[in-house]
This record gives sequence, C-alpha cells and structure tokens, in this order.
Amino acid sequence: MPDAVLRLKKGTDRRLRGGHLWVYSNEVDTAATPLKGLEPGCSVVVEDARGKPLGAATVNPASLICARLYSRQATSELDTRLLIDRLQTALSLREQLYPEHCYRLAYGEADLLPGLIVDRYGDYLALQTTTAGMDCRMPMVLQALREVFKPKGIISKNNGAFRVAEHLPEEQSVRFGHVPEEIELVENGCRFVAPLVGGQKTGWFYDHRENRAFLQRFCAAKNVLDVFSYAGGWGVQAAAAGASSVVCVDSSTSALALVQHNALLNNVADRVDSLQGKAGEVMKALQKEQRRFDIIVLDPPAFIKRKKDQKQGEKAYHQINELALKLLAPGGLLVSASCSMHLPTESLQKIVRSAGGTRSRRLQILASLGQGPDHPVHPSIAETSYLKAIFARDLG
Amino acid sequence: MPDAVLRLKKGTDRRLRGGHLWVYSNEVDTAATPLKGLEPGCSVVVEDARGKPLGAATVNPASLICARLYSRQATSELDTRLLIDRLQTALSLREQLYPEHCYRLAYGEADLLPGLIVDRYGDYLALQTTTAGMDCRMPMVLQALREVFKPKGIISKNNGAFRVAEHLPEEQSVRFGHVPEEIELVENGCRFVAPLVGGQKTGWFYDHRENRAFLQRFCAAKNVLDVFSYAGGWGVQAAAAGASSVVCVDSSTSALALVQHNALLNNVADRVDSLQGKAGEVMKALQKEQRRFDIIVLDPPAFIKRKKDQKQGEKAYHQINELALKLLAPGGLLVSASCSMHLPTESLQKIVRSAGGTRSRRLQILASLGQGPDHPVHPSIAETSYLKAIFARDLG
Repeated sequence: MPDAVLRLKKGTDRRLRGGHLWVYSNEVDTAATPLKGLEPGCSVVVEDARGKPLGAATVNPASLICARLYSRQATSELDTRLLIDRLQTALSLREQLYPEHCYRLAYGEADLLPGLIVDRYGDYLALQTTTAGMDCRMPMVLQALREVFKPKGIISKNNGAFRVAEHLPEEQSVRFGHVPEEIELVENGCRFVAPLVGGQKTGWFYDHRENRAFLQRFCAAKNVLDVFSYAGGWGVQAAAAGASSVVCVDSSTSALALVQHNALLNNVADRVDSLQGKAGEVMKALQKEQRRFDIIVLDPPAFIKRKKDQKQGEKAYHQINELALKLLAPGGLLVSASCSMHLPTESLQKIVRSAGGTRSRRLQILASLGQGPDHPVHPSIAETSYLKAIFARDLG
Repeated sequence: MPDAVLRLKKGTDRRLRGGHLWVYSNEVDTAATPLKGLEPGCSVVVEDARGKPLGAATVNPASLICARLYSRQATSELDTRLLIDRLQTALSLREQLYPEHCYRLAYGEADLLPGLIVDRYGDYLALQTTTAGMDCRMPMVLQALREVFKPKGIISKNNGAFRVAEHLPEEQSVRFGHVPEEIELVENGCRFVAPLVGGQKTGWFYDHRENRAFLQRFCAAKNVLDVFSYAGGWGVQAAAAGASSVVCVDSSTSALALVQHNALLNNVADRVDSLQGKAGEVMKALQKEQRRFDIIVLDPPAFIKRKKDQKQGEKAYHQINELALKLLAPGGLLVSASCSMHLPTESLQKIVRSAGGTRSRRLQILASLGQGPDHPVHPSIAETSYLKAIFARDLG
C-alpha cells in the first residue's frame, strides 16, 4: 500500500468516480496533503474530501496532471505483477486482431497503463514512458515486458511533448538485448522496414493500419500521391493493392530511401516514385506541371501540438488540403488525416470542405475513421482519441 | 430550364453556397415568389435576394424543407438523363467496393440524388422516394434504373417519417418486372435471405456491413448475443466467423425464422439459436438465468425518431445498454449501435459509459464506427450521417 496520501478538494472526485484517471494539481487539498515534497513518480492513495479512498496513483508534483490512478484499490502497488497483468490483458486483444506480432501493444491510460506506450515489432519492443510514475519504474517495466514477451531487444525512445510536461529529460537507449538500426514489420500483408533507432517516435505509425487497409480497396489502377509519406506506409500498400503509380513525398531523404526499399520488398518498386521536398512546395510544383492524381493521401505531422497553436494549425491544415484538392483528378479520392488531438473530426471535415471551395459541393464523405483498435480510447479521457482520417470522394 | 423561380431572403443563400442543398420555407421571399400555388415536386430556379441564380431545385410547398437543389446549374432539369448520370457515378463507387452487386446503390443527397434511396440485391432493386420532387418523377427514376441496371424487378417501398414530412402517402408496389417475396444477398462472404415484400424498410440493412466485418475479427470461439437481430445479419456472420454459439433475440417470429434459414444457408445452424421476445424482457430473463456472453450486439431501431423524443430515447438506449453490460462476461465486447440521426456518437458513448456504472471504469473503446461507404455522408448536411457502432471492450 502506498505510504503517502493525496486528499482532493470537495467536489473534485466526481470525474475520477466517473472513470477518469487524472488528478489536476489545483484539485488537491494541498493544505491537508501538500504536493511539495512528494518524490516524483511515487505512489499515493488518492482520497476524496471526506477521506474516502478512491484508488492508488502515481504522482508528479511538477506536472499540471499531478497524479494518475493506476488502480481503484487504494492498497494496490504499481509493481511488476500489476504490470504483467495489464500487459497480458493488452496482449490478448492484439493477438485476436493481428497474427504477425506487429502492433501497438500498450496504449497508456486506455490499457490502464498510464504513462506507458509500447510498440511491438515481433521480437523487438520500443517503449515510451511519458510520466514520472512510469519512468521511475523502468526496471519493473522491463522485467514485466521480458517476462510476458521474451523479446530479443527493448529500446526506450523517450522524447516528445508529454515528457516535457512531466519535466522528464529526452533520452533514447537500448534497455535490453540487441536492437537493430532498422526493424522489420508486417502491416496489412505488406512487409516494411522502419528506422527503429533513428526514426520518428517509436519508429512506425501503426495507428493508421486499418485506414490504409480501407484505402487499399480503392487503389486498383489508380495513380496515387502520398504526401508526408515517411517510410511509405500508405504509398507502398496502395501500390501493393494495384495502384498503377504512386508518388511518395517527404522532406526526409532517409525516409524516401526507405520508401524505395519497402517498395522493393513488396515487388512494387516499378510503380513507386518519390519526390523529396516540403509538402506544400512539392504540391505547388506538381500543380504547375498540371499533374493530377486519382487518390491523394495527406498524413501530416500534428500541426496543432498545443491548444495555443489551434488557429495557426488549422490554417496549415487548410493550406495543404487546398493544394491537394487542386491536384485531385475528377472523381478522385482525398484521404485527409490529422493526428492533432486538439482538432475534432468535425473541424477537419469543415477544413476539407472549405479548402475545396465550390468544388466541395461535389464531395461526399465515404468514411470518417480513427485510430486502429490497438490504440484504444479511454471512454472518459478525450485526450486518448487523436487520430482522424476522412475519406472524401469527388463526384466528378 | 425550370419555369418557376424561388427567390431567397437576404443572407439565406450562404448555406447553399457552402454546399448545402436544402431551402427552408422561412428562407423564401414569399412576397416576391410565393410558395403557394407551386405544384408539389415541380422544379424551380433558386436565386438569391439579388436575383442571382444559385441552381435548380425541386419544390414541396407543404414541407418545412420546401426545396432541394439537384443542380448548381439553373438551366438543369431533373430528368432521366441527369438521373442516369448520377446513378452511374453512384454505381462506380459501389462497384469498386463490393463484387456481389449487393449494396445501397443511391443514398439521396450524398449521391446528389435528393429524395432517392435505392438498395440493390443483384438483379432486384428496392427504392424509396422521400420527396415530392422525386416521387412525382417515378417514371423517369424507373426508366433510368432500368437503363443503367437492366434489373429483373423493381419494388418501391415507400413508408417512413420522411414521406410523412413531405405529405406523401405510404405505398408499396412492384414497379417493374417480377419481385420475389424474399430476396437473396451476400454480405461479407455470407449468404442471406431477407424479406423484400414484407420486410422492414428496403428489406436489409447494408449500413452495418463494415461494422459486422469488423466484429467478425473478434468472434472465434466466443459466445454471442445478438439483440434486435432481425434476419441475423450480425449473429449469423458472427457464427460464420467462428463463434462457438450465437443467440439471436427479436420480437418478430418471422425475423427469427429467417435467422434459422440464414444460419442453415451458411452451415452454422448448429451454433445459432433464437429467442423470441422484447429485447428488455429477454435480457432480464437471461440475467435471471445468470447467463453471460463474450460478445453482445445491440442494434436497436431508432429510439429517437424526432428531436422531441430525445430524452425518452436516450433513456431507452441507457436501459438496454445497462441490461447488456450486466450480461457481458468479464473481458467481453459490447457493440452498441444507434441509427438515430439525433444521437451524436459522443452521446452514445456517454450512455454506454454511464450504463456501465463502476464497471465502465474498466472499458476501452476499440472503435467508433459509422455507416458503410455505400451510405456516404454529404459534407454539408449533418442529417445524412446517422449510424453509430461503438465497440467497447471490458478489461476483465
């Protein structure tokens, strides 16, 4: 049982009772139970204003979200045993869905593992600990992962905004065994190599897997533009599904080298080209050349990282969607994605509509999809839902 | 070119210019262009307050939505040629998606065919005309359908709230050729027979096809409860995907007879049972028997048909979700659907959460899906989006 106690102010227990897992620092009765002095990452019993226990949480006095419940039982410890139990529950879902052991294995709060993200590439695991509570339990996390998955290697890829908010340093290191520079994976029947050590985030973006599978159904004999292609997740799968030609656009030459490698791996190199440059500039150049595409995928990085970027970010989404819709052939299909948590589906849909100008009068939305089921959403924590992919068809 | 003109009041053209297709009766400058006296269903030129044409529409002076644009060209006529053109555009989408010629072929506004819904069952078509404009063009509609699809039979199944709002009578009749009492169709690789003449709406609900396909991925060796089963769309597909046992619940004995027939058709009759009765009562009885199910599907009829039913309807959704969650085995999966246009996804999610009580603290949302791509959404007309299916997994 945790030693320390965090008492909440009157009325602030409601959200937690409703299912939420977070305590904000201004909700704590700091007169009764000061946050100051608590060791970052230590576990506490959270209790309501009357002293009734609500559960056990890890604490970070330096963070706006100062505590995260990991159990409704106040006596519970966030130890190896609990981690193993939660990881096995998470695994049982993924095993039902994906035969190849390639998936997001643990998605933080939604898998009742606040602060822990793990992506699996067969025998290799890439993890992020985004809270002090999980970060300081790294030895237990590694032990639990080793016990459940018997991996050949584990790498921690600890960067990003979440760690900044928790005042945790950026770091990346091989935590167990050997981890290759580049990693192999299978998605929707296609083979890929992704940069595990040098790549973005945990190396691959499994979150769009189902959306890429959906796109494959439209690809036969189409010419496709994949903007912000990274290692070719969308573009190579489109080619494998029968696209007559694919152009992948990315600003990173190393990403585009992987695109070519991945195209070769799937025997579609003759139909996959790449263009290096900034998305906006490349799309403008294609526009000048009067190129048109039957399918265009826009899968940009998050343009709205924080709430204060909202206006600027929406403008950026508008711009790329406007450029894309100009390049879309009559009767074509635009896949407009966003991984900005702060941009609701409805807003992205409005952006697509307004970016199309009068042309959007002849659009129909075939699907509004989200993140795949290996990135589940916590029903009470809106922040766990972030991915959007709108499939908009031009009626010609 | 339409003879009559409908002039809008100042400022009311904005929504139409933005892509919407509807004119409300209070937006018309009736002093300049009276609605009274216009023949229901006739076509008009819609113009803004300055007399600038916005497009061509069909009119119904008796309806709150008094006009619906069918073209941005004021000179356009809603004739057989235009209908053929729109149907071919609609067909080209469906042909990409579904090899078996079984789908919603035309979905009103979103296919730029305001007031026309057509479901296809191979050689047979079931249609609804939901506006006076489309209703009075039935001969052209039939001609266009015959030309594009060469069907063996066409039936009109004209009932439902939309026609009431347009002051159109209920009717059902074979409009062309021969139409069998019961119709065969294929969905997600399963064969079904549905009641075309005596059945609900157009006979089958293709709108959940993709959601049923998604569910199939979870079914292996599970026991499944399919509540509001109708002819067994969910249940039989679950059995075909490897469910160890399925119980279909419906109040209609004829629907349950079809469940058994469809189970036989797919060689799963030994694993599909049925229970006749009201959903709530049957679920309560199962609860008394302490039955538990790994997967429960709730696919009720629309509990919120009109805005004024909102509160009562939400309560009804709450009740069935509460009953279902009590029957859900630890680690089970609840599929909670709603076809009420007036119930947003977020509200349904809240209902599921609150229906679960403290148990909902251990739910994760694997997917929030909508209607299939053969039921596209018009980007400016929220009413074209109606279907929800929330996949909520219990964490055990």
